[in-house]
Amino acid sequence: MRRVLLAFGLLFVLAASPAGPLFDAQTTHQRLDPERLIGFTVANQTAQYKLEASFDSGLRASDLDGWMKHMTSKPQHVGSPMSKANAEYTAELFKSWGFDTEIEVFHVLFPTPLERSLELVGPTTYKALLDEPALPEDATSNVRQDMLPPFNAYSADGDVTGELIFVNKGIPADYEELEKRGISVKGKIVIAKYGGSWRGIKPKVAYEHGAIACILYSDPMDDGYFQGDVYPKGPYKMDMGAQRGSVADMPQYPGDPLTPFVGAKEDTKRMTPEESPTVMKIPVLPISYADALPLLSALDGPVAPPNWRGALPITYHIGPGPAQVRLKLKFSWDIVPAYNVIARLKGSEFPDEWIMRGNHRDGWVFGAADPISGHVAMMAEAKAIGALAKTGWRPKRTIMFGSWDAEEPGLLGSTEWVEYHRDEIDQKMVAYLNTDGNSRGFIGMGGSHTMQEFINQVARDVEDPQTGVSVLERRRARDLANGSKTTPEKGDIPINPLGSGSDYSPYLQHMGISSLNIGFGGESGGGSYHSIFDSYDHYKRFGDTDFSYGVTLAKVMGRTTLRLANADILPFRFETFTGHVNEYVGEVEKLVEDLRTSTEKHNKLVASGAFELALDPKESILAPTAKDAVPFISFTPVKNAMAALVEAARKADTAVASAEASEALNVAIAQLERAMTDDKGLPRRPWYRHQVYAPGFYTGYGVKTLPGIREAAEELKWDEMNEQMLQVTNMLNAVTAAMNEIQRAASVGEVAKPAR
Amino acid sequence: MRRVLLAFGLLFVLAASPAGPLFDAQTTHQRLDPERLIGFTVANQTAQYKLEASFDSGLRASDLDGWMKHMTSKPQHVGSPMSKANAEYTAELFKSWGFDTEIEVFHVLFPTPLERSLELVGPTTYKALLDEPALPEDATSNVRQDMLPPFNAYSADGDVTGELIFVNKGIPADYEELEKRGISVKGKIVIAKYGGSWRGIKPKVAYEHGAIACILYSDPMDDGYFQGDVYPKGPYKMDMGAQRGSVADMPQYPGDPLTPFVGAKEDTKRMTPEESPTVMKIPVLPISYADALPLLSALDGPVAPPNWRGALPITYHIGPGPAQVRLKLKFSWDIVPAYNVIARLKGSEFPDEWIMRGNHRDGWVFGAADPISGHVAMMAEAKAIGALAKTGWRPKRTIMFGSWDAEEPGLLGSTEWVEYHRDEIDQKMVAYLNTDGNSRGFIGMGGSHTMQEFINQVARDVEDPQTGVSVLERRRARDLANGSKTTPEKGDIPINPLGSGSDYSPYLQHMGISSLNIGFGGESGGGSYHSIFDSYDHYKRFGDTDFSYGVTLAKVMGRTTLRLANADILPFRFETFTGHVNEYVGEVEKLVEDLRTSTEKHNKLVASGAFELALDPKESILAPTAKDAVPFISFTPVKNAMAALVEAARKADTAVASAEASEALNVAIAQLERAMTDDKGLPRRPWYRHQVYAPGFYTGYGVKTLPGIREAAEELKWDEMNEQMLQVTNMLNAVTAAMNEIQRAASVGEVAKPAR
Repeated sequence: MRRVLLAFGLLFVLAASPAGPLFDAQTTHQRLDPERLIGFTVANQTAQYKLEASFDSGLRASDLDGWMKHMTSKPQHVGSPMSKANAEYTAELFKSWGFDTEIEVFHVLFPTPLERSLELVGPTTYKALLDEPALPEDATSNVRQDMLPPFNAYSADGDVTGELIFVNKGIPADYEELEKRGISVKGKIVIAKYGGSWRGIKPKVAYEHGAIACILYSDPMDDGYFQGDVYPKGPYKMDMGAQRGSVADMPQYPGDPLTPFVGAKEDTKRMTPEESPTVMKIPVLPISYADALPLLSALDGPVAPPNWRGALPITYHIGPGPAQVRLKLKFSWDIVPAYNVIARLKGSEFPDEWIMRGNHRDGWVFGAADPISGHVAMMAEAKAIGALAKTGWRPKRTIMFGSWDAEEPGLLGSTEWVEYHRDEIDQKMVAYLNTDGNSRGFIGMGGSHTMQEFINQVARDVEDPQTGVSVLERRRARDLANGSKTTPEKGDIPINPLGSGSDYSPYLQHMGISSLNIGFGGESGGGSYHSIFDSYDHYKRFGDTDFSYGVTLAKVMGRTTLRLANADILPFRFETFTGHVNEYVGEVEKLVEDLRTSTEKHNKLVASGAFELALDPKESILAPTAKDAVPFISFTPVKNAMAALVEAARKADTAVASAEASEALNVAIAQLERAMTDDKGLPRRPWYRHQVYAPGFYTGYGVKTLPGIREAAEELKWDEMNEQMLQVTNMLNAVTAAMNEIQRAASVGEVAKPAR
Repeated sequence: MRRVLLAFGLLFVLAASPAGPLFDAQTTHQRLDPERLIGFTVANQTAQYKLEASFDSGLRASDLDGWMKHMTSKPQHVGSPMSKANAEYTAELFKSWGFDTEIEVFHVLFPTPLERSLELVGPTTYKALLDEPALPEDATSNVRQDMLPPFNAYSADGDVTGELIFVNKGIPADYEELEKRGISVKGKIVIAKYGGSWRGIKPKVAYEHGAIACILYSDPMDDGYFQGDVYPKGPYKMDMGAQRGSVADMPQYPGDPLTPFVGAKEDTKRMTPEESPTVMKIPVLPISYADALPLLSALDGPVAPPNWRGALPITYHIGPGPAQVRLKLKFSWDIVPAYNVIARLKGSEFPDEWIMRGNHRDGWVFGAADPISGHVAMMAEAKAIGALAKTGWRPKRTIMFGSWDAEEPGLLGSTEWVEYHRDEIDQKMVAYLNTDGNSRGFIGMGGSHTMQEFINQVARDVEDPQTGVSVLERRRARDLANGSKTTPEKGDIPINPLGSGSDYSPYLQHMGISSLNIGFGGESGGGSYHSIFDSYDHYKRFGDTDFSYGVTLAKVMGRTTLRLANADILPFRFETFTGHVNEYVGEVEKLVEDLRTSTEKHNKLVASGAFELALDPKESILAPTAKDAVPFISFTPVKNAMAALVEAARKADTAVASAEASEALNVAIAQLERAMTDDKGLPRRPWYRHQVYAPGFYTGYGVKTLPGIREAAEELKWDEMNEQMLQVTNMLNAVTAAMNEIQRAASVGEVAKPAR
């Protein structure tokens, strides 16, 4: 066992943290040493930097280009011949680079369309085209063999006719606007814009309100000519482009809708689609704005509120009607094979400590940007690590790569793999490192807050290919130039908590594995997302055209992987976590206070008659009615638990800073995130076990931190909030205990497994 | 001389006034008496209420309807046969109601178009239609005799060809965006949206930047289908509608461009149009969005920033070019007669104290909403007052009505009348009470802050026709329902300071006459403004369809006129004025501080290189450069003067509250607003003499309070700011002296004329 002095970068102390600065200037000061690589002894640091330089020399932009061109030449969604071919291609490459590689197959529900038709049947008629054209400027756009046309996976079958009604983005707030106007969607077919939430929320909320079908469309204000020149002149969505995508109720659970909690092998016992709580109960179809225009033009009734209106050259009306539409959808409800490619390079010292790097491989059609742009970066990392291994080098910990299939329909490949291997993952996995589509621009960093300082240091050590400064400093420059209130002038940039939308969800939120999700973007116009035009040609003209950011992503993720694999002591920092969580507690407390104040104000105005008097008698808008008063909710237990946790984190950091490396200490650190989970999970969605991070029940991808109490407050469920307050308190206490174990292990070199 | 106890309503103490509450609770308390009519003795109050009830009984909605229908049957702009006919019609009616009536003619420059053509000449071609269609649903839209087609008055003649460039709204901030992109408008033809400033600002700023012509268009996002259904289905601007209007440089001076400061009689010495500083130096033409679409579609170059984009179904590009346009305009530069109708009812006690009520009469075409809807309310007031007079009643002070011609080209009728009668007005006029177009909805109140309490009490005493509560309480309900931060739950609603855009400007801002501007609106969709569709038919379908708000306006303005004419002591309140002005001082101080802070922050970011690093190297945007540091500016003299003024106002209010009525006291009160003027006027625009209220030099209609110091700060003219600080201090001292005179007159019943 060697003696290690851990060096920590400057902690960015979050502004206005209710508990004050997290530690005093003196302790901060002794930790500042920008020359030191976090988690490494001085001796090992030098070797690590050398290793990383060798790693970099193994990266070739031309590799990424060639792999993308090959892998996106045919439609390659889960279940397609190209899905299997790409899995085999990837596996062969991994093998050739020296990895112990297998293809692990799961058998998952993936319905594909047999019939799709949408017609305006009255008062005028129009038959929607529901197809994207072939363009001479886009070579693959005429490859139609195996192509899935625009559809929403896990829509219900149906043949329904009804009055059309425009519901803006179809999120709960939009239904409040409808209610003001006394308009119900019951028995109607809603048409909703994409945007404002994950798409699956829209049909779910429509169904909850009694709608019989849901049409999704891309408004040109959000995704089309209003944003910029459309394809093929520019990158934005052309009039006939449509966004495919899943509408499974992922905020309940992702993965195969038929096998929650269980890896879907061929003989696994499964529900029927009718029994599955995540399969949508009404038909749903995505359409282009060319197809939406005749439908929206045929609506009358109240003019939509200003923030509902889009960029089509019409007055947006809500309806319902007089437009009547018929939507007919029929799917083939098949169980298809999902091919995950898993590659391993065994750790020389701690083979049972796993660092896993992953990216999905399946696309909706060709999937150049989403996900192959990220996948080829991961391949480049594997190739370069393989080249290091060929020299005889081995990581201390086991490095794994996961090339996931079936992410698009709902994280199926990764989720089934995690569910199937749950016990081993629980024991062995130290961290999961995710990427997805990548592009040109600025680094985006999300993940477990314990890894904030670590990933900042990685970003500090990689050069931005356009400017020559580090990717961290370029990101900082952009944030400061945009007037960011959270990015500091010096020190770490806060990383974002993770919601959902990519394969980290089963690791982080189901299993409590510390996770990161990284990507570059912000300088490439969108519009190809989930359309047939997410192609190699589009990416080469408008994405990361020379793959320089693909190589840069590989440098970032390669360092992330290699440092975690080789660290003497795992480079996690505990006070960054408590700083953020303390802030989230403050946010939820403020949310309740603001709700109370606004409810009181609202009810006072209702009582005064002001709302009634303010109404235009010629408009049929209803005055708001009184709301239930917001009770006082005690935050005392949570705040006491938080105070203890802050203290435990401070002590753990201090202890680790001068600790000797030991397996026990590393295990204790690796297991810390598990203490943030609870087997009860979140209300109405036990699959989501993490108590700090979850996708929002009514936002989908958008994160809700401390979701148990935050969503209870947002949904005004006060009894639930009191219950969840207890659950959060228990979790904080468990994390405190886990931190205390880390402190003990750091001090004595021996530790019991942290409490769960 | 009778003993008078003035009753004052509750003063709304402005929030966060740096000098604290304006007077203490004890003094406030003794003034509260909602039963008392401000300015009247108990005995006279009863008579006044009775008079107002008689006045109300003389108002007939059918009168307003009939007068509007008659007066809007033909185009009636200044110089048209119908202008003269309507003047004679109005004069005859005033005479028939018993008023001493005259038509006073001025001779003013009013150019009308001889030739208008606009063509896209390359790379594609398009010839703009420049005409509004006749519609079967709109009876007068086919009356083409004497109709002025869409044009901008006081545009230059010209025949220019050049590259087109889109400049958003064409205000200074938009040119900063162009500068960032290294784009100049020099030698180009700019196309700008209406909105964001008064229209005349756009060609002025374009000219200042070297453009050779300016096209104005109505974007459907601001004025068209994005807002609601278009005419004739709904009230909003149809695709071929265009907004006429003046582009004289009114922020320099309004009125006849050839005769500033002087009433333009037939033999008045005048400049040539070429010499006039307010005639635009480049050709300017307003077009419809149907005509704008081919022009904007033909632009390329950078995509316009998000907040520049409108609702046309295109990607908005800035250009310049490749679109080349040719604009040819030729005007007949005629001197035409402007017919003001002036009616008088002599005061029985104080014939030389004038209360003037005014509304313009001329429209751009038929002018139903703008201005006849307000003009017919004024006529109803005159008829009802005439009926009172026929019973033998006489006002104590002289009541005058002004029916102004030539307001549309730039307040010509009113301004020339004021300039011609300046000495008499200066001596005799107590208040000017303006209205303009009127519609359905909520009362809007702007004016001299000394009249805030008075007009609130008037609004308290008039019933809203749709809800039965007072128009004040309905307005309050709307403000509170919208979350207003300035309208209190009880007490007076703050009135807005006045910028420009109607005939109060020469009274208030040139002469220092206490003024009010009142109107109803907020429940009628717009889109007819300055188009051929501002017609009787449009107004009857979408405006104040039954003229109930026309009658309500007459009730408000009738009370305003009659109370001012009959008050024992003029019902002005001085602490409302100081409360607002104190707030304006605070705003300007904060403006300078914010500028300093933001400049420091900006320069720090420039120095750090963050702006450069944040730029997308594939976009040709330039990084911002360092700005001149903002010096420290002393507000001490202004704040000391303000403190003295606050004290003087408090004493004046207290003294008046228990004063005996006297002519001297009333004269002192009437003259108070004169002390707010300065013969030097504002920098570069001496015509604007008021030091508290002015239209913005770069906003046009929008008000700038304390314009001398506020605009110097906004334009970063620090030497000028220091000069103006002195001028504001002098003004505040003069108002303090005038308040002291009021106090003395209130105490002793005798007073010297307040200092100027």
